Parts: sequence; C-alpha cells; structure tokens
Amino acid sequence: MKHLIDLDDFSLNEINSIINKAIEIKNNQHKFLDVMHGKIIGTLFYEPSTRTQMSFQTAMLKLGGQVIGFNNPQNSSIAKGENFKDTIKVIGGYADIIAIRHPLEGAAKAASLFSDCPIINAGDGSHLHPTQTLTDLLTISEQKNTLSGLNLGFCGDLKYGRTVHSLVKMMLKYENNKFIFISTKELQIPKYIKNMIIASGNYYEELFSLEDAIEKLDILYMTRIQRERFKSIQDYNMQKNVFKLTTDKLERASPNMIILHPLPRVDEIDIAVDNDPRALYFKQASNGVFVRMALILHILSAKNTEAVERINLNECCTNKLCITNHEKYLPHYFKKNKNDYFCEYCSREIKL
Amino acid sequence: MKHLIDLDDFSLNEINSIINKAIEIKNNQHKFLDVMHGKIIGTLFYEPSTRTQMSFQTAMLKLGGQVIGFNNPQNSSIAKGENFKDTIKVIGGYADIIAIRHPLEGAAKAASLFSDCPIINAGDGSHLHPTQTLTDLLTISEQKNTLSGLNLGFCGDLKYGRTVHSLVKMMLKYENNKFIFISTKELQIPKYIKNMIIASGNYYEELFSLEDAIEKLDILYMTRIQRERFKSIQDYNMQKNVFKLTTDKLERASPNMIILHPLPRVDEIDIAVDNDPRALYFKQASNGVFVRMALILHILSAKNTEAVERINLNECCTNKLCITNHEKYLPHYFKKNKNDYFCEYCSREIKL
Amino acid sequence: MKHLIDLDDFSLNEINSIINKAIEIKNNQHKFLDVMHGKIIGTLFYEPSTRTQMSFQTAMLKLGGQVIGFNNPQNSSIAKGENFKDTIKVIGGYADIIAIRHPLEGAAKAASLFSDCPIINAGDGSHLHPTQTLTDLLTISEQKNTLSGLNLGFCGDLKYGRTVHSLVKMMLKYENNKFIFISTKELQIPKYIKNMIIASGNYYEELFSLEDAIEKLDILYMTRIQRERFKSIQDYNMQKNVFKLTTDKLERASPNMIILHPLPRVDEIDIAVDNDPRALYFKQASNGVFVRMALILHILSAKNTEAVERINLNECCTNKLCITNHEKYLPHYFKKNKNDYFCEYCSREIKL
Repeated sequence: MKHLIDLDDFSLNEINSIINKAIEIKNNQHKFLDVMHGKIIGTLFYEPSTRTQMSFQTAMLKLGGQVIGFNNPQNSSIAKGENFKDTIKVIGGYADIIAIRHPLEGAAKAASLFSDCPIINAGDGSHLHPTQTLTDLLTISEQKNTLSGLNLGFCGDLKYGRTVHSLVKMMLKYENNKFIFISTKELQIPKYIKNMIIASGNYYEELFSLEDAIEKLDILYMTRIQRERFKSIQDYNMQKNVFKLTTDKLERASPNMIILHPLPRVDEIDIAVDNDPRALYFKQASNGVFVRMALILHILSAKNTEAVERINLNECCTNKLCITNHEKYLPHYFKKNKNDYFCEYCSREIKL
Repeated sequence: MKHLIDLDDFSLNEINSIINKAIEIKNNQHKFLDVMHGKIIGTLFYEPSTRTQMSFQTAMLKLGGQVIGFNNPQNSSIAKGENFKDTIKVIGGYADIIAIRHPLEGAAKAASLFSDCPIINAGDGSHLHPTQTLTDLLTISEQKNTLSGLNLGFCGDLKYGRTVHSLVKMMLKYENNKFIFISTKELQIPKYIKNMIIASGNYYEELFSLEDAIEKLDILYMTRIQRERFKSIQDYNMQKNVFKLTTDKLERASPNMIILHPLPRVDEIDIAVDNDPRALYFKQASNGVFVRMALILHILSAKNTEAVERINLNECCTNKLCITNHEKYLPHYFKKNKNDYFCEYCSREIKL
Repeated sequence: MKHLIDLDDFSLNEINSIINKAIEIKNNQHKFLDVMHGKIIGTLFYEPSTRTQMSFQTAMLKLGGQVIGFNNPQNSSIAKGENFKDTIKVIGGYADIIAIRHPLEGAAKAASLFSDCPIINAGDGSHLHPTQTLTDLLTISEQKNTLSGLNLGFCGDLKYGRTVHSLVKMMLKYENNKFIFISTKELQIPKYIKNMIIASGNYYEELFSLEDAIEKLDILYMTRIQRERFKSIQDYNMQKNVFKLTTDKLERASPNMIILHPLPRVDEIDIAVDNDPRALYFKQASNGVFVRMALILHILSAKNTEAVERINLNECCTNKLCITNHEKYLPHYFKKNKNDYFCEYCSREIKL
C-alpha cells in the first residue's frame, strides 16, 4: 500500500508524473468524472481546516467518488476516550483512502501503520503538509513550463513557515534554481535549509526588504507574518510594511513574475494587487484540487514494493509534540542516516 | 453569469418559467436524476440554518450533483482573519454554484462581485431570502392553478417578517390580488409596503383578529411572532391567542383555503391543525427542494446579458449591518431611482 | 411503510434474510454499487456519534445513494424552539429514509408516527440500538456458520450494557445457545434477562472472573466498564484487571473462540490482543456497514402489511426519559401483554 506522509516518500519521477497527471486532468475534466465511482475518501480532521478539507472533498467528488469524515473530534468516539489506532482501524474499514489532519507531529505516519487503506498527510502539526507543496509545484510548472533554472523569492515568515521549507527542499531536486529569502532578522530561514542549499551546490541570498529583491524574481512566494512572532505590536507595525506586497512595489517586478501565496492571507498582500495579472494565488488554490485528484489516482493505483529499513529502539522521541509521546502503544521506529537517528514519525533527530 | 441575489433580478417570465420547471421536476423526478452529474454546489452558511442548507443540498443531490460547504465559520479560515472576498474566490474555484447565508445584509451581493461561479442568496441578515418566496409561489401556483385573483391573508409578525414583505411584493406582479394583513398594532405591515400596494392599484386591509379575517381568505400565510417583539411577557400572553390558528377558528374558513407557513413554527399553529387537509406547510417545505432544483438548472444554463447601470460613490452606506461597513475593500455601488440612491448591497436608501 | 425501531418488529425470517443479504453484499460489492442511485438517507443525530453516523453514511454511499443530515442540534431549527414532529415531517419530505439517534427513549418510535419515509433507530437513549445487534449477529453467523448451539460469554458491564441485553434476547431465538455472564457483583446481568433465558428453557451461568470462564467459550463479547459505575476509583482499580482481556488470559481460550466488542473500547482489551487472529472487533465494525446496506435495501423494498394493535390511554408513561414526557402532543400509545401495559415508545411497563 502506498501512502503520502512526506514528499520524500515519493521519487522525483513519481512527483513529476503526479504533476503531469494534474495538468491532464485540468484540461480534460470530463474524462475523469467517474474514475473513482464507488470509492470513498475519509477526511479525518482532528483540527478544523475547512479549506484543506473541502479541497480533498472536491477532488474526490470530481473523480466520481464520495466523502465521509469529521472536522470536530469533540463529536467523535475520541471524546469517549478511544485511542487513535482504533479510530483509524474502524474508519480504514469504511473508506478506500484517508486524508488526515492532526495537531500532533507524526500522526499521519502513525495512522499509516494501522490503516487498512492508504493515508494522505493533510498536515501533522507544524511538521509536514505535502499536498500544499504539490500544489505549489503544479502552479509553477504550469506557468513557467519548467521547474528548473528559476529565481525563487520567499517573503514573510521564513523561520516557521513549513510550506516554504518544503517547497525549497523540493526545488533543490530540480536543476539550477536560485533562492532569495526576504524576511526580518527574527524570521530568517533556518540554518539547516541554508546548509542543504549549499550542500547541493545551489545559490541563495538573504535580503531584508521586498523592494530590493523584487526585480530579480521569476516567482514571488508570499507568506503570512503572524503578529505573535514579534516582540511587540510596535515592532510588528514598524516592520510589516517592508514585507507587504503593494502595487507600488510590483512596478519594479518583471511582467513575467508570478505571485504565489498558500492562503489564507491576512494583509501581507494589498487587495489591490489581486487585479494584477501576475497575482496567481487564487489559481494556485484551485490547482490544489487538481493535484489532489492526481494524487488520489496515483495512490489508489500504486503498489508499494519498497522494503522500509526501520529500527525499533527503546528510546522515546524527545519531541513533546510527537504523537509517540501521546499514544503510548506506538512502536519507537527510527531511521538511521549515517550515525544519526531520526524519529520516523516527526523526523526529529535523537541523540543516543 | 447569472446570480440570484434579489427576486427583482429576475423577470416575471423567468420566475414563471422556474415555477413551471419545478412542477415538471416534481412530476418527473426520474428524468432529472443525472442532469447535474459532475457539478458541485458549495453551501456556505456563515450562520447555521440546517433546514435551508439541507434543502439546497437535497436539491443538488436529486439532480445528480454533489455538495461541499460549511455551517460553522469558527471552523474555517475566517477564524484565521481571512476576508470574505478570499473565501469566495477560493471556494468559487472549487464549486460550480454557491448558496450563501450570512448575518450581514448585502453579503450575497458582495460575493457575486468576486465569485467565478453563480451565487444564490440563501438569506443575508434580515434583508432578503428569495428562495423562500419562490417556494411560496410554487405552492400557491400548484394548489390554486393561478397566481392572480387571490385573497391573501398574512398573519403574525408583519413588521419584521421578511418572507411576508417579499411575497407581497411578488404577488403585486400578478393581477388582481387582495391583501389582508392580520397582526397586533405593534407588528403591522410597514408603510412602504402599503404604499406599493396603493401605487399598483391593488387593495389591502388591516385587521386585528384572525377570527374576523379567516372567512374571506384563499390563502392564509402564518408567521411566527417572537416573544421579544412585545413590551412584556404579559403583553405577549394576552395577545398571542388572538393570532394563533386553531381548529376552532378554522371552522369558519373556506374548505378551499390553504394554510402556509415558512417554518419553523413555535406555537402560532396548534398541532391539531396538522390533520386538516388544508394545512399545507409541510408540503410547502418539501416544495422548497423542487423550486431550488429548478433554480439551479435555470442559473447554470442561463447567460446574463444585461448591462448593469451602477454608480460608484465616495459615500458609504449608512446601514451598520451592511457588509460594506465590515469589508472595507468593497466598492461603494449604488443604484439610482429617480433622484434617490440605493445601496446595491443592502438596498438601503442614502441621502446625499 | 416498514421501520426498524426494535428488532422485535422483525420476524426471525426477516432477520435471517438481512444477515444473508449482508453476506451476499460483502462478497459482491460491485453488484450493489448503484442500486440506491437517486435515493437519500437523512442521518439525524440529536447527539453526536460520529462512528454510527459514518457507518450509515458509508452504507448508503456504497449503494450509490446520497446523504444529508446533522450531528449537532444546536445548529438546527430545534434551537429556534421547533418541536420534534415538525423536524421529522420536513426532513421526511427531503429524504427517502431516515436514521435517527436521540438522547430520549422512544424518539425513533415517535418519529415513525409522523415521518413520510421509513425510520431506522440508530440509538434512542439507553433504550435500543438494533443495528449494533444486527452487526453482532452478522459477525457471529459469518464466523461460526451458525447462530445455534454456541457458548456465548459476555464480559464487563452487563447491567447497563444495552448491546448485551439485545444480543442475548436475539440469541434466544436460535436453538441451544448457552450464556456465560462475567462481571462484578454490581454490574450483573438484570434479573428480567435471566428470567427470559429460563422461560425459554436455555442455560446460563454467572461468573466473577474472566480467567475462569474463558476456556468454555465460542464467543467472548467484551464491553466497556465505565469508571462512574463504581463506588470509588479504588474499587475500580482493584476490579478492572479481573475483567481485562490480555494475551495471558487468551492462552487458555480455544483457538476457535472469537472476540467481539461493540467499540469504542477504552482499556478492557489490551492493545497487544489486537494481533491475535481471534480478535475480530475491527472486522465486526466494518461488518456494520454491510448489515446496514442490507437493512436499507430490505426496508426500502418492504411493505408493512401488519396491523398494529395499540391502546391509547389517558395515563402518561412514568419514565422521565421517555420522549412522551418531553413532546407533549404525542399520543399515549401502549401495548398490552396479558394484563400488563407497556409504553410503545420506551417499552417501560406502567401500572394501572
């Protein structure tokens, strides 16, 4: 059985084939109207995220399939003290594929250990959200006809923004991309990402103003800056305009630059920018449906033949938000990379 | 693109054709089982109204279409500070048609400015609820074989009851209808409605007891009287029985009179009345599905070719519940009628 | 019209035919993909029970039908003061079949008096939950190829566990079954059940330790013991392990014994037991879908031709949790059995 927990589970070939399939579906929707007839997706949202949930539901419905699920665990058996495994076992017996969102890191991985049907990770805490990254890749690929040789600007909260981290990692798999990181000092891109870029022989730079960076970009990827990340509301108010995209700043950008945003936005993109033909964030959102359609098709027709090399240790993961620290029956699986051990659920490195 | 925000958007021809289509659907349901195959309705309920939401869902499902949506904005991106426009843009990219309910007046209008798919107003605050009126028209037309030459009685809260106002306005478009308004002094029909009746050359009278009025009626349209509308609970208790429909009072009514109610009722119709063959409010409720089926078909096959004459002013609407006072990016659109200006969202007149 | 309020409404022939149909569906799912095309189930959950609701939804979807419903009455017209009857009348006009769950006893019965479509009882307070029992019967029948001549052990809360009471009553309809009840003194099986077993000439025994009982069993039916049933937390902690199923205790059981549980479990079955091939509770849960598919097919193709002999008394039912004490317009229907009268809604005997 094939799951999508982390994009690293998929080969570059598979990812390219999903993106190409998504473009084919988008241009020939009527051909796919019934391909999932009789199949059911379970959308198990342990924390609400209407947007993502509707995107999965729409994807399955447009393939002729059906939907069950919940978005409020207070209403479910969980409230009666049921463990996570039992919920997954039971709903895995109802559905043909499950999309799961959970506040704890590693929850999707844990689900995949027990489920009788494939699992898609629709967000596990602040750990991974791979279908957003597939959406971003589809939109770039569709607009630029390539995923190589691009100048990618990332603006906003680069420290905590998991969609940024995930997209950078993926773009490193394609050739000759340059990365321009635009943020405050406090919200700079993490060191381990910069190391990955260096290790792969790619180029990056860090800038502290959107205005300085915008001219060079093929893609501007905007993200929300959360007020809570700043020391004070004064700090926030002083800095936010430097990183806010306005029609003024856009004048200096290339006519071929495209603007992306994972949404929801708050006020980091002025609403007047929406009328600019380069503003593609709403198209990006609707692309999310097509890439999820392609993903569902891929997973339900795939056979997973790879043997996983896993290590079962006595040690427990040190991440308090890792699901293994909340569901005590879970085996302590780790992956070994050289001499380091990484929790298979939440990806945290542990020291032995 | 065709929307249904206000019944005034539709010509009398269109309305008659929707009602006739609804009757055709009701009598030949099997013919319509798959006509919306592959289409999706988004039911965006910013305030819960299970009944209306299920009615739209049932309508789409009976046409072979599918449903996405929410009924609890606390669970959605709105809770993360997203503006109304972005939600509409994104879900308009998922769905083929949207039914929207919102506590603010003009919300459906605002949605129609941005959406990439048609919008149906499923209630915007206390402003409009056009599909309820279509349901009423269908039921009267089906039972009386005409929408002209009828004696229509309206009983209950005539001051605040938007379904009453809307139905009266529609029945004025047909010939020779008479209006009998039955309410307390405090809850009388508004002056502007009476002026419309006079201006169109029709007849109305106002009565203060249901018993006095019931003999003359072809249709008795009952509505809920809310306790909160009265000065005191004593006042309410004293008056409510005068306006409560009982089997006793029904004895004086014509055997052909029909009893309608938009539901939910509380106690303004005694439960014993349900067994009277003239009690048609449950049939009326199920007619709501057929008229919504006809409406969805109409809208998704229509082309809107009318040019709208609109005026964009600096002034803001004076209605605090108008959506333009909450979503600040909305353009200030007004319609001019003679020398008066009316907000295009909430219909409130503004003085310049 | 045929309803399922209580399994007693169905003849043994009907029950056997539903179980056989469920097995047929399970082995030939593709044949049933479209048999309910165009039909809608309304799942009205007046108290949340995600598991049961999803089970009904999945059943209808796998038959090609569709779903409407709610699981949160706070969001519905009920919150506006609507009575139960009106909700049922309206939704009975939208749906082709209704599955209802309600905290009051007799609610499903009350619904069946008014609904224009068949009603399935999905749980009415602590009174009845007949589809769980059908699920249990299917699983036993499928595994043992018979429903007769079995040694059935029931362990846990036998006093309040309605699934236990209902399954015992059904198994008495088949020949030569033996009942072994395993519980604390405080949670023993009620006297009236023991009397039914004696009256039908069957055998039972009561034991106070799972270890003593397990050797003799063909079926071990585990249930949750709720902490609140014990005098103190000390009492609970002292006793719970005697009734907890562990791999140790399982060593003494027959290799052909099967373990059932209506789920959700808390900790009365150790999670290590899940790997034992005799642990069938997750299969049992997925059987719930197949038996509900068979039930929907049975009900929607059945004609109810039996005349009901009912007595309408002035007396009110003495059960405060009976729906007749909350919805005052309900007729006081009773059934007479010899000289005793039983409320037709909640089954409570009343003394005249």
